[in-house]
Amino acid sequence: MSPEVQTVTAEAEVREINQKFYQALESLDLEAMEKLWLHHEMVRCVHPGWPMLAGWESVRESWEEIFRNTDSMLVSTRDFSLHIEGSVGWVTCTERVTSKRSDRSETALVQATNLFLRREGEWRMVLHHASPLALPGYTPPSETVH
Amino acid sequence: MSPEVQTVTAEAEVREINQKFYQALESLDLEAMEKLWLHHEMVRCVHPGWPMLAGWESVRESWEEIFRNTDSMLVSTRDFSLHIEGSVGWVTCTERVTSKRSDRSETALVQATNLFLRREGEWRMVLHHASPLALPGYTPPSETVH
Repeated sequence: MSPEVQTVTAEAEVREINQKFYQALESLDLEAMEKLWLHHEMVRCVHPGWPMLAGWESVRESWEEIFRNTDSMLVSTRDFSLHIEGSVGWVTCTERVTSKRSDRSETALVQATNLFLRREGEWRMVLHHASPLALPGYTPPSETVH
Repeated sequence: MSPEVQTVTAEAEVREINQKFYQALESLDLEAMEKLWLHHEMVRCVHPGWPMLAGWESVRESWEEIFRNTDSMLVSTRDFSLHIEGSVGWVTCTERVTSKRSDRSETALVQATNLFLRREGEWRMVLHHASPLALPGYTPPSETVH
């Protein structure tokens, strides 16, 4: 394949695994989530407002906890961008997440960076950084020392 | 150079440009910041609580605004990790940022993902995603729809 065709193919593949990530999220499917992450200590994950989790085991446990505590989740994305550089691909987007638990529904806007690596011909997620987007009237958490 | 030596060299180079980023931040030095970013529409930047900025011009303007509205900034980092894959390098860390303006001082914990690309032998920042770390009692912004 020419480099141009390789890039187009890689972009389609990364777009696909990124979609699979959001499908796993919406279907609260831990098995699907397990399949698309690299099982390695290098992986990192920041859920909105959470500290950064390091290593696959911690990341897997966090998804298990989130899925256990959620009845349903709907995610739409916008401001999507995707870049490929060799065996690394990254996506940035804004997520609109509506999650329900025990008849309580919440909608939040989230900024996301998703990073993928190609390993043995397969793309795998290695980083998900999701952070709350400021809504009008929102003040970032801080402690005033003076 | 052997692949191992190349990797060690790349790690040292990415560590160096990551340090330069925090030095530029602490010294409120727009010129230093300009030198270490790739001037390209692909760059992305999320300041804590801000929407994602796309393209170098928007990112440059944001640093100009932040530096203009800050008298001093101190940044220390912990939980540092660094990975290299070909011409891509990424760093994750937790920042402790103390910023002052008009005798008002604030300290915040921030989770950061920094992504760098090697272009013509030089590493350049292409993504900075910084998000507020939940402090005790913090609730992520959301709107209740039910």
